[in-house]
Amino acid sequence: MEQQQAIYDDESFFSNYLQIRADKDNYNDMIEQPAVFGLLGDVRGKRVLDIGCGYGTTALALAAAGAASVLGIDPSEKMVAKAVAENTFANVAYRVLAAEDMHALTDTFDVVVSCLALHYMENLGAIFANIRKVLSDGGTLVFSMEHPIYTACRERQDWICSNEGHARAYILDHYAAEGERNVVWLGKAVRKYHHTLSTVFNALLANGFLLEQVVEPAPTEEMLARVPRTFRELHRPAYLLARCRKT
Amino acid sequence: MEQQQAIYDDESFFSNYLQIRADKDNYNDMIEQPAVFGLLGDVRGKRVLDIGCGYGTTALALAAAGAASVLGIDPSEKMVAKAVAENTFANVAYRVLAAEDMHALTDTFDVVVSCLALHYMENLGAIFANIRKVLSDGGTLVFSMEHPIYTACRERQDWICSNEGHARAYILDHYAAEGERNVVWLGKAVRKYHHTLSTVFNALLANGFLLEQVVEPAPTEEMLARVPRTFRELHRPAYLLARCRKT
Repeated sequence: MEQQQAIYDDESFFSNYLQIRADKDNYNDMIEQPAVFGLLGDVRGKRVLDIGCGYGTTALALAAAGAASVLGIDPSEKMVAKAVAENTFANVAYRVLAAEDMHALTDTFDVVVSCLALHYMENLGAIFANIRKVLSDGGTLVFSMEHPIYTACRERQDWICSNEGHARAYILDHYAAEGERNVVWLGKAVRKYHHTLSTVFNALLANGFLLEQVVEPAPTEEMLARVPRTFRELHRPAYLLARCRKT
Repeated sequence: MEQQQAIYDDESFFSNYLQIRADKDNYNDMIEQPAVFGLLGDVRGKRVLDIGCGYGTTALALAAAGAASVLGIDPSEKMVAKAVAENTFANVAYRVLAAEDMHALTDTFDVVVSCLALHYMENLGAIFANIRKVLSDGGTLVFSMEHPIYTACRERQDWICSNEGHARAYILDHYAAEGERNVVWLGKAVRKYHHTLSTVFNALLANGFLLEQVVEPAPTEEMLARVPRTFRELHRPAYLLARCRKT
């Protein structure tokens, strides 16, 4: 099956991505990852699968938080190579594998986590069905994805700014038109898929997941004061996160 | 407790509202009500409470669909007077009562429905707790409300249009800033409350409701062809609906 995140194996895209993540004020570390770990709660003794593990920072943090084992899968060979080189630990393993090909996994897990990967996937129902198969009964799924308000835009994904350059509003278009979005990010054409919020939730519910909590993280007061560019994030949520339980 | 919908008792607001609803292409009848009845499914033999019943069109439709009984409550005396005058039926009753004062009800219900009323309410958690108290075990809640994307705006609640006047995008601002919104509608200042999507869902989940289905209705092909002004609704959902079960 086609691997949407193969873009991460592009040389210049990959190095640009690493540069963003190296910025101490990157959105993943400031906004998204704290929300993910807030939803995960106590992972001590849990067998965890990390879908779209990238170069392994979340997987290593899960191991440090006491997970019994962590398997990180990602379709990008470059990402997995960097994960193996830099973020390996006794109970952490990595594998080049797309979420679409998860049927190749024979283990089961207590917790599945997926950080900022689902918006690359066309068929969320199929992914959630795959996740259900590898989760133990009563197991937990925590995911973050680009918010449907963020993925919707076909026209420009941009802001309305004041004369002083401050974002006064976000420009939202084509929310109802689900499907492929081709955006330029880090100098390359990247293909994502826009799903409405109702499609995301209904795909979870249809696959036997019980919704437990929803988070749309916003910058904190401390963050706004320290990193003024985060002010614009108050106009629209960048991320959608949820915790669900397999019933 | 303060009744947010008291604006409907204002003479000119009320008559302007009736004028909108009299238009055969009004959004309630075209977009919102079909979605509500789609979520409700079979109501035959059910005891139904309609919160924010307005002048009783939904209540009467529920009776016509075979509900055993329908009680409509609304804080507006004018609305209830018109409901009693025009939309009464043997098993339909109306009462002037705000959702905030629902503890005055002693009956229980199999189904609670609330159409476009929740965005007038400041404390959704308290409302959902009240609804839980009057629902029988396993009972169903179906609601529609203005979508958080719609209620968010503080600045202008407007569109970006092409030179030909076609809406190309929706202007979204202050999504993360929950609370009071004062908008001008039908020539009057109307107070609403913006809640984020996560607040709406988490308030349901915290009050023991199981989420079953979510709907963000968009105009159909037929509607777009017949009523061209609905094209702009493709850029952002106007309504959020859900069906939930009391556990």
